[in-house]
Amino acid sequence: MKFDLIAFDADDTLWHNEPLYVEAQDKLKVLLAGYADGETVDQWLYEKEMGNLKYYGYGIKSFTLSMIETAVELTKGKIQGAEILQIVGFAREMLTSEVQLVEHAEETVCGLARSHELMVITKGDLLDQQSKLSRSGIGNYFRHVEVVSQKTQSTYEALLTRYGIEPQRFLMVGNSLKSDILPVLALGGYAVYIPYHTTWAHETVDCQRAGHDGYYELEHLGQLPQLIERLGCG
Amino acid sequence: MKFDLIAFDADDTLWHNEPLYVEAQDKLKVLLAGYADGETVDQWLYEKEMGNLKYYGYGIKSFTLSMIETAVELTKGKIQGAEILQIVGFAREMLTSEVQLVEHAEETVCGLARSHELMVITKGDLLDQQSKLSRSGIGNYFRHVEVVSQKTQSTYEALLTRYGIEPQRFLMVGNSLKSDILPVLALGGYAVYIPYHTTWAHETVDCQRAGHDGYYELEHLGQLPQLIERLGCG
Repeated sequence: MKFDLIAFDADDTLWHNEPLYVEAQDKLKVLLAGYADGETVDQWLYEKEMGNLKYYGYGIKSFTLSMIETAVELTKGKIQGAEILQIVGFAREMLTSEVQLVEHAEETVCGLARSHELMVITKGDLLDQQSKLSRSGIGNYFRHVEVVSQKTQSTYEALLTRYGIEPQRFLMVGNSLKSDILPVLALGGYAVYIPYHTTWAHETVDCQRAGHDGYYELEHLGQLPQLIERLGCG
Repeated sequence: MKFDLIAFDADDTLWHNEPLYVEAQDKLKVLLAGYADGETVDQWLYEKEMGNLKYYGYGIKSFTLSMIETAVELTKGKIQGAEILQIVGFAREMLTSEVQLVEHAEETVCGLARSHELMVITKGDLLDQQSKLSRSGIGNYFRHVEVVSQKTQSTYEALLTRYGIEPQRFLMVGNSLKSDILPVLALGGYAVYIPYHTTWAHETVDCQRAGHDGYYELEHLGQLPQLIERLGCG
């Protein structure tokens, strides 16, 4: 076996996540329709999220606080209490919505767990991510779960050191070039990029990645076992 | 040496935390003074926090969302947008306030780090706790930092397994009987209880703890090195 550890991003890699945010944001736009057009809401919220990131970090609670600030500011304080509670309600729905696995997630993870040690490495709210993994029905296939506040090269370096894994025996699978792929390649690890049909603007980066050693791109998770088998024979 | 690992709770064990919440709550009571008396605000907010715990988890963002819900509900929706932003501002202040170490924290941790492996085990927001540890100036004394969503017996069991530590070689230090002491004693570990002058109602439990093996109570952190030395000779 070529890999001592195979790690997966969670949101939009194992299960659908971005649509929950898009849906909540659509509801916010409807709520604020009397005050600002949809594009303005999108833009204002995005800037608010970026400004808040260093204070709040990632996840639904941070997103909700940014939605509330956006709503108050764009309505110049005219938003009603009942509408603020509606926004809190969007958060509640997101936190309790059914976890929808992406196509092929279950069979892929189940199959790979027979031969490899699997891990989840994800950003976001600690409790929310643990709850989703538990609700997903595939939590038991993962030996380790790491919820981190960011995914930089030093994040991965610290994790691999802690688990005693050599980078060249490590494979990361994810939908974000910035968070899942580039930092792992920089360490000398393997990374499999599986684009999600919508990816949050903040997670996109420009990069020259053609021909990089250790880099692979797949269309869907169902192709992963074959790739891993091929790499093991190389 | 008797202990392979000494772990510390963070909030109200290494640094002052509860006063930040009390101060924010006091400001909320002033803000809502025209609608409800202080006792009603306290009670409503506490119940709101308890009800939200399973969705939001611990930490400042959760507390803020509960304050916002409380404000809207107690004012029957009459609260103004600008006031909602004030509540969000309380959160920002909490998240960026100076970290105030408790008495003796620095010299104790610095001294113990020379002879022992130290860890922080804390609940709360991942990013906020990491940020506080980094701002505290004592972050480098801890080999490991674990932010967990709850502190139950199985939480500690999983952590000790992961780090390969026998419970009887593990010492936990904290201000919460429920979260820091009882689950560790139940596993057969050592626990040092250092009460904080105010402790959140949710964290208090009734317990029979006199004479329990492995249980020690101290008045302040400065007494810890001597206790550990004494245990090492026992």
